[in-house]
Amino acid sequence: MNKKLKKINAAILIIGNEILSGRTQDKNISFISNWLNSKCGISVKEVRIVQDEEKIIVENILHLSKKFNYVFTTGGIGPTHDDITAESISKAFKVKYEYHLEAYKILEKYYGKKKFNDGRKKMAKMPRGAKLIYNPSSAAPGFITKNVLSLPGVPSILNSMIENCKKYLIKGLKTYSKTVNLYTVESNISRQLGLIQKKYKKFVDIGSYPFFRLGKIGVAIVIRSSSITKLNSAKKDIIKSMKLKKLQILKI
Amino acid sequence: MNKKLKKINAAILIIGNEILSGRTQDKNISFISNWLNSKCGISVKEVRIVQDEEKIIVENILHLSKKFNYVFTTGGIGPTHDDITAESISKAFKVKYEYHLEAYKILEKYYGKKKFNDGRKKMAKMPRGAKLIYNPSSAAPGFITKNVLSLPGVPSILNSMIENCKKYLIKGLKTYSKTVNLYTVESNISRQLGLIQKKYKKFVDIGSYPFFRLGKIGVAIVIRSSSITKLNSAKKDIIKSMKLKKLQILKI
Repeated sequence: MNKKLKKINAAILIIGNEILSGRTQDKNISFISNWLNSKCGISVKEVRIVQDEEKIIVENILHLSKKFNYVFTTGGIGPTHDDITAESISKAFKVKYEYHLEAYKILEKYYGKKKFNDGRKKMAKMPRGAKLIYNPSSAAPGFITKNVLSLPGVPSILNSMIENCKKYLIKGLKTYSKTVNLYTVESNISRQLGLIQKKYKKFVDIGSYPFFRLGKIGVAIVIRSSSITKLNSAKKDIIKSMKLKKLQILKI
Repeated sequence: MNKKLKKINAAILIIGNEILSGRTQDKNISFISNWLNSKCGISVKEVRIVQDEEKIIVENILHLSKKFNYVFTTGGIGPTHDDITAESISKAFKVKYEYHLEAYKILEKYYGKKKFNDGRKKMAKMPRGAKLIYNPSSAAPGFITKNVLSLPGVPSILNSMIENCKKYLIKGLKTYSKTVNLYTVESNISRQLGLIQKKYKKFVDIGSYPFFRLGKIGVAIVIRSSSITKLNSAKKDIIKSMKLKKLQILKI
């Protein structure tokens, strides 16, 4: 059977005033994006960071879930008043916000009947029909509603749950990448890179990023493609072109 | 004269495949947000990270510049083919994309006439009518077009330019914040925090964020408000309520 993989994309919706205010530096975007591409062949195409406000979350869920194959939300699924992700997603999809039986049982067992207070019970409330994303580190599950996967905001907990998202995702075409590093400035190689990008059109994506290392200025040329053949060919062209300019490729 | 400050908001639009792919961890969001609030009294209310694609940039510029008082873009103003921020903003606002005379002179002087190649000249091309945001570290200026301020993506360069944005910004109402740290779990204090949040309604924003320190689990309660009086009053209420629960406030 010819199992031809397709391009599959995703968006990330970060729900959290603490990221917007600058108090907390986000660590989840690069983790989720790297995991999705390397393990599932899914490319993150947009990220939004929004306030903990129902109306705003509803709007963004509706927009992103239509536009992308998957949406990952982070944050807002804890026990406090500012955790409104599950309720907002219920409103967005017009389904009931209610106790998820299995989640309720998991949490009741984890905390014990006596200590299973209202805050903790809240973490079992989800959009009707949601399926669970198990949480091996602190019990409270994430959940998937239609194509929206909801994870917590605390990076260590999110990281421990990510493998449990896999069963809900269709595998897509992985994007491979290679990097060519050299000590130069972007403006010295921009013409060459532009020409090579033109040659490979949409099949290869060439980006250039300045870096500073050991007091020297360099450029990392990042080549990305879902075709290894085209990737290697573009890399060869870049190296050839850089050698013509007498630039040395760095092994870093 | 009664100079009453108003609430002023901003959005950040990060233009960069390297952030979406997870290759690079963004550092600009928290820097810009903290600077805007502490120095200008401007609150960041939304962040978007999008691909280096003209159509997408145009759409987002139009949307965000209508919705927020200011938009800060980062990335895509260098000399290479993937630097398309200036051209995209020109298209969004239907103005000519052309050499900015002063920027051209700055760059020509910096590189010297002989070394002022096409890539470097590209950095002087901007939307007609743009005003410059000077760059003390690597010459190539940022620029402001209507209410959109465009800065580079490299954090050290962006950081060196941020003070030069100030003259274009109207000062707003600063958001003050206080944090109460304690060793507990969120679900243990969620009811109390919910009640206090209700009391202060929209005037105070109370968030709670789990942390792990020295092998212990804690919660940082972050209280934010543009009124110092209300902020202090909410903080008092929170401390009183936590003491009633026999929880010790940490000095960290």
